[in-house]
Amino acid sequence: MKREELYSGKAKTIYKTDDPAKLIAQFRDSLTAFDGKKKSEAAKKGYYNAQISRKIFEMLEEEGIKTHYIEMESDTDMLVDAVEIIAIEVIPRNIAAGSITRKYPIEEGTVFDKPVIVLDYKSDEYGDPMLNEDITVALGIATYEEIAQIREMALKINDILVKYLDEKGFLLPDFKLEFGRKGGEIVVADEISCDTCRLWDKSTGQSMDKDIFRFDKGDLSKAYEEVARRIVPEIFE
Amino acid sequence: MKREELYSGKAKTIYKTDDPAKLIAQFRDSLTAFDGKKKSEAAKKGYYNAQISRKIFEMLEEEGIKTHYIEMESDTDMLVDAVEIIAIEVIPRNIAAGSITRKYPIEEGTVFDKPVIVLDYKSDEYGDPMLNEDITVALGIATYEEIAQIREMALKINDILVKYLDEKGFLLPDFKLEFGRKGGEIVVADEISCDTCRLWDKSTGQSMDKDIFRFDKGDLSKAYEEVARRIVPEIFE
Repeated sequence: MKREELYSGKAKTIYKTDDPAKLIAQFRDSLTAFDGKKKSEAAKKGYYNAQISRKIFEMLEEEGIKTHYIEMESDTDMLVDAVEIIAIEVIPRNIAAGSITRKYPIEEGTVFDKPVIVLDYKSDEYGDPMLNEDITVALGIATYEEIAQIREMALKINDILVKYLDEKGFLLPDFKLEFGRKGGEIVVADEISCDTCRLWDKSTGQSMDKDIFRFDKGDLSKAYEEVARRIVPEIFE
Repeated sequence: MKREELYSGKAKTIYKTDDPAKLIAQFRDSLTAFDGKKKSEAAKKGYYNAQISRKIFEMLEEEGIKTHYIEMESDTDMLVDAVEIIAIEVIPRNIAAGSITRKYPIEEGTVFDKPVIVLDYKSDEYGDPMLNEDITVALGIATYEEIAQIREMALKINDILVKYLDEKGFLLPDFKLEFGRKGGEIVVADEISCDTCRLWDKSTGQSMDKDIFRFDKGDLSKAYEEVARRIVPEIFE
């Protein structure tokens, strides 16, 4: 049962529960981009993202990857383990898109020979600067062993998602993962949804993700609904 | 013998020689900072930096580390191997100073438990963005094996320089290395001088490096002369 609000992020609000080891993540319809400079709402976005995340977490658990997901409390409310969040945004990249094409001489659409893993420091104050392993350890964010484990998990999750999404008619240029510590273990935290993945329709090449909002590319709710129809068809029955 | 000018950089001009396998690096008195936005000249800077670089290259060679250094052609002109430059600036950091203290929550003067190695992409056009290993390989800059070797060489050079400079009364917060390919080998290239090292006087804490120019901290020629007096006293005899 939802209790006191713990934290309200860009797209989710986190609530305490009666059990201190469990939290509820409520997926909201709000959207922000460009460090909060652009804001909006999209009907049913929270619902679709919660259901897509739920499905992906269930799939990862089946593949032996630990996540913070426990169960759904409602259409938009996810019961999760209270983990100690590791302040890293882990971005597996398969096809060059977005920031990497502006920072370096890599053309959008370039397919990487092997996935490129980028670690950013999760810090609004510092503008999420890129990390390397030495800096991550020097900042006390994670140990070398934890970084190696996070990297291995990210590559495995990327493999699973690329194959799964391919079957559903999507390319996965890149996506963002967050991790947390639970006991001595590292588990996947946050969400894996249309807000945190770059998803391109395989046949049309169209964005089916938050880039629709970032770059005014059309009807976000409609695109997210289409993604949900392919990934969680059961919610439309 | 110096022939056609090949390339003129911020502080050195590179000339061809009669031997296509050898080049001459002429150390100039010109200074630039902040991506060339700030410019000046300092008397004898080229001379001091050439001699300091010479001495450090000789020392590294004695320790079994390959460099592009062959011999001095004059006070300011260094004969070097023509190597294929690897477009990475390698920055070993021992004490936090400069950009790392602005990009991340690390206070200036923080002593790192172990050296932090940062790789930047050597590109004026892209503003020398930081690299990680995956991006370095994806950009075709170097292989994973080369990066591992560069890292190992950088750590060894850092160890040697920290100890050596400590004996001369300096702290070495950080410095920049460049590497090149010569045959199948990776060798140290460019220069190691007051322009490319952050050097603090151990007793006063004063900058004895290009930060004097960057932040108008005093008489650069005088400071560089003092560094030269401690590292290459023979040139004052």
